Amino acid sequence: MASTEHSTAATSEMDEEKEAPPPQDLTLGWVRDALIRQEDSIVLALIERARFPYNAPAYDPSLLPQQGGRSLVEAFARGAEVLQAKFGRYQNPEEVSFFPDDLPAPSGIPYNFPEVFHPASASVTANNAIWNMYFNDLLPLFTVEGDDGNYTSTAAADLVCLQALSRRIHYGKYVAEVKFRDAPQDYMTAICAKDRDALMKLLTFEAVEEMVKRRVLKKAMVFGQTVTLEDKTFDDETKYKVDPAVVARLYDEWVIPLTKDIEVEYLLRRLD
Amino acid sequence: MASTEHSTAATSEMDEEKEAPPPQDLTLGWVRDALIRQEDSIVLALIERARFPYNAPAYDPSLLPQQGGRSLVEAFARGAEVLQAKFGRYQNPEEVSFFPDDLPAPSGIPYNFPEVFHPASASVTANNAIWNMYFNDLLPLFTVEGDDGNYTSTAAADLVCLQALSRRIHYGKYVAEVKFRDAPQDYMTAICAKDRDALMKLLTFEAVEEMVKRRVLKKAMVFGQTVTLEDKTFDDETKYKVDPAVVARLYDEWVIPLTKDIEVEYLLRRLD
Repeated sequence: MASTEHSTAATSEMDEEKEAPPPQDLTLGWVRDALIRQEDSIVLALIERARFPYNAPAYDPSLLPQQGGRSLVEAFARGAEVLQAKFGRYQNPEEVSFFPDDLPAPSGIPYNFPEVFHPASASVTANNAIWNMYFNDLLPLFTVEGDDGNYTSTAAADLVCLQALSRRIHYGKYVAEVKFRDAPQDYMTAICAKDRDALMKLLTFEAVEEMVKRRVLKKAMVFGQTVTLEDKTFDDETKYKVDPAVVARLYDEWVIPLTKDIEVEYLLRRLD
Repeated sequence: MASTEHSTAATSEMDEEKEAPPPQDLTLGWVRDALIRQEDSIVLALIERARFPYNAPAYDPSLLPQQGGRSLVEAFARGAEVLQAKFGRYQNPEEVSFFPDDLPAPSGIPYNFPEVFHPASASVTANNAIWNMYFNDLLPLFTVEGDDGNYTSTAAADLVCLQALSRRIHYGKYVAEVKFRDAPQDYMTAICAKDRDALMKLLTFEAVEEMVKRRVLKKAMVFGQTVTLEDKTFDDETKYKVDPAVVARLYDEWVIPLTKDIEVEYLLRRLD
């Protein structure tokens, strides 16, 4: 395909927001840009899930007896992961499966993803916590009650949300690796002492966290607004597809803490 | 789940943008609101596909010989449709399969979707045209060249785009049905004469089409901008994740004409 046929939108300052594979000389700037772009993906995924009401039957394991105690959403997610694994999704170390025990070997198109993570740390995962947080805490906060029968589309939208959250939170592995490489001596003592609290303190920057929360709140306002041809301004009466305060809370209570948990667990294994 | 746990964001003027099942007394206002909300879904789907470069290997059938001449994207889409059909996606008459010959019977949770379409007209489809348009025409216009190895994620993002476009275009069946019900005498003569041109003329409102194109252009500007904590205004230097002109062209050249084709084909069978 000739280059002239392709969009040139990215030949600009937007380049930094494209998701390229991590450079071999991983930098905090590259990781930060990827994290910022992933905020957009999370907000957009929540907005698309919120098109549907809660759709309680999709989460009720008693309604699909042939699935052996699994809800439609769980059975669908497992099936989708099997399909995606077959075509190679999890060859990319950024992608972490929710049900890794049941995946087939990939038979898609090979690709050499750069090996960035320390081998002993590469497998740390928060996917169980993400799964439980999403269904038990988050989902009721941004969906309205109701049942429109679109259980499969709902399950597919849930999986997009879960995968976006999982990728974002497991980027903590990049954060930890780049911070360790930049200043290993800062972390050695705490790692050797297996001192989780000390590591958590080293990895916590409250001003940055506040900025992230304010930015995702703004993204939820911008991307979740109703766009009409008339000009309008944001005010207290503006309604959003997903409550921006819920997105800020998602980052405050779950995304940021879980990311730091991943960073701590990664560093604890970084010298193994 | 108690009602107080759920978001109340929709108890407002946003109600009309929720995707509820079509009311038995189908109105043009309901159809119009659904079409407007689906513009958002299409724009958001394109933005998420544009995270990845073109990823040419995903479209090359020679790279997956075990798939019998199918590209990774086609093999993945077929597998995803089989999975989604199993859990009931296509029980909703709004959802139209790209590969209907290979689908299993649904074994998900039953739901009585309202039967709105005239039986002889219900099966009209433009999915072959949508599939070819998407891969041959649209995709190169909004992706940048490159190969980041994320072929499965790319294929999944393509399928979200295709399903959003397919749903939007096949909503032409609702448009045709409600217009016919509102004034059958307006269409009878042209239907009986099998006069496609006359039907197309009856279904074309250029001022409305222009408004739709301007609105999707604006949506691409709003949803595709880079949101930072600093205030900023749109100007000629603003870069978007997907070129808004491409989204306007998508509607002008493909979405609007294909929707009207569906409307014409639907009406031609409306008296059978």
